[in-house]
Amino acid sequence: MKIAVDAMGGDHAPGEIVKGALKAAKILPDIQIILVGQKDKIDLHIPEDLKSTIEIYECSEVIEMDEHPAAAIKKKKDASIVVATRLVKEGYANALVSAGSTGAQMASALLGLGRIKGINRPAICTVLPTLQGGKLLLDVGANPDAKPENLLQYAMMGSIYAEKILGLKSPKVALLNIGSEEGKGNELVQAAYDLLKQSSLNFAGNIEGRDIPYGTADVIVCDAFVGNIVLKTIEGMSSSLFQLIMQKITASTIRKIGAILVKPGLKEIAHMLDYSEYGGAPLLGVDGTSIICHGSSKENAIFNAVRVAKECIEGQIIEKIVDGLEKSTQK
Amino acid sequence: MKIAVDAMGGDHAPGEIVKGALKAAKILPDIQIILVGQKDKIDLHIPEDLKSTIEIYECSEVIEMDEHPAAAIKKKKDASIVVATRLVKEGYANALVSAGSTGAQMASALLGLGRIKGINRPAICTVLPTLQGGKLLLDVGANPDAKPENLLQYAMMGSIYAEKILGLKSPKVALLNIGSEEGKGNELVQAAYDLLKQSSLNFAGNIEGRDIPYGTADVIVCDAFVGNIVLKTIEGMSSSLFQLIMQKITASTIRKIGAILVKPGLKEIAHMLDYSEYGGAPLLGVDGTSIICHGSSKENAIFNAVRVAKECIEGQIIEKIVDGLEKSTQK
Repeated sequence: MKIAVDAMGGDHAPGEIVKGALKAAKILPDIQIILVGQKDKIDLHIPEDLKSTIEIYECSEVIEMDEHPAAAIKKKKDASIVVATRLVKEGYANALVSAGSTGAQMASALLGLGRIKGINRPAICTVLPTLQGGKLLLDVGANPDAKPENLLQYAMMGSIYAEKILGLKSPKVALLNIGSEEGKGNELVQAAYDLLKQSSLNFAGNIEGRDIPYGTADVIVCDAFVGNIVLKTIEGMSSSLFQLIMQKITASTIRKIGAILVKPGLKEIAHMLDYSEYGGAPLLGVDGTSIICHGSSKENAIFNAVRVAKECIEGQIIEKIVDGLEKSTQK
Repeated sequence: MKIAVDAMGGDHAPGEIVKGALKAAKILPDIQIILVGQKDKIDLHIPEDLKSTIEIYECSEVIEMDEHPAAAIKKKKDASIVVATRLVKEGYANALVSAGSTGAQMASALLGLGRIKGINRPAICTVLPTLQGGKLLLDVGANPDAKPENLLQYAMMGSIYAEKILGLKSPKVALLNIGSEEGKGNELVQAAYDLLKQSSLNFAGNIEGRDIPYGTADVIVCDAFVGNIVLKTIEGMSSSLFQLIMQKITASTIRKIGAILVKPGLKEIAHMLDYSEYGGAPLLGVDGTSIICHGSSKENAIFNAVRVAKECIEGQIIEKIVDGLEKSTQK
């Protein structure tokens, strides 16, 4: 199986991206990596003894984070994200991974891979660390002005992903809302509630923001505006609270001694909350596997994103979504 | 100054509500409390020596949390929240505080007090604990389908509140969004951005979810659907993380010893994050002071809500909002 990795995308590209890709090539069975980008820059980060084993697919351009996505991918036909996406489209690679501009990756996917027939809007699906393990939140960034039928499709795609990738049997799907009772919320979620209730999904109704970290639902559905803000609020809460804890538990000599003793416990929590462990977020609904990574991704995050790409292909996520759509339209 | 306290509203009513109100009457200068509710139930919680000093305003009905707000306040004319609101309207009380059904309190306020002329929609304005102290988030629950001009009015009201109640000079107002650059977001916030940019407020542009806990803005504006989910996500993150920390730092004998040593530091954090310290959330935009408390409010939360009510009256929040509106329409 071949995974194209956009070696030029991300805050720590190409160094950390290459490291993560090499780790995946070494550890994961049946994985061949194609590093897409500027050969001279990538080469610096590949140890001599591996140079003959890793394929580099040369391309000349890079899309920067501040460029307008749609304009950039049209102008820079030889940008690493555009080329990586094309390799998937042409069947040369089975999936692609990038930590570059999310907008450019989405635009490349929409233009290069196209949508799965029947899916109106793709969604970025992320794994959230919770007290009950990893749970799904989608959409966290693709479509900030969603319609009720989009949310239904997110729920269907998320449910398939949770079953195949997280290994959850009949995943509990919930709608993110401002109250638990039916009839709560804005016009969008009220209409989406009705659609979800009528679907064949295991729909558990509404959940509120405070339920998210407790992991009470397996798949949480919302529009990208809400999802992105929630995801980043959770990230901000984790990091700010840890900063505060480290400051407060080392504020005196006695506390510092205590801090040394409890440190292994805090490390376990930091590990649980570490997004890099969960790999990238797939863009569900496009006709090809495109894994979106956090811009700040380092070696471990890229490694796990390649792992997720592999699991998506092995789990036949796209085929299952096509099947799911066919079944739901036959209903 | 007279504050009407809805003694029947909240998970811990009337016991904790009465305790908080009595504490306020004792500690805060120039405060007279009117306990609104069923006298026989309230009386049980007032010590004998205070019975002659505390006014009870008898009313026979209570609106339960699961009743439809608008229908309930029309049916139950003698419900504690309806009566407490009427006391403010009639000038018998200067403000009211309730921990009962938020919907019923809002409906009572809209019907009983009316909107301030020029404000299309009121907003619930909450104080968020952040690394830089308390900051404002609004709307967190009044109007889940907001329009751009609503967000502008929230910003104006929040800015006045931050200046008068939090004592912040020229408060930094930000729009909660999914990217920091202009042009990001859904249709609502894109249009609101333009209005805020043209306003005379100290508008700092967009902020993202991860910025909220760091306290980078003084007043964060969003629609109630987003605000309510963010507020509850923050609550859920605080409580779930603390639960996880307590579990992990006491998982062995050595860690338990460390936990004892760092406990004062963790207590300081818990105190910083304790919502009851910040009191209730005013419903800004109605023509009277109505302070909304968390349903789970206990003595300390009610005490602080009465304090907030007092500060709102002393800070002449309503008059300042009226002034602010006049100035902005004259521009």
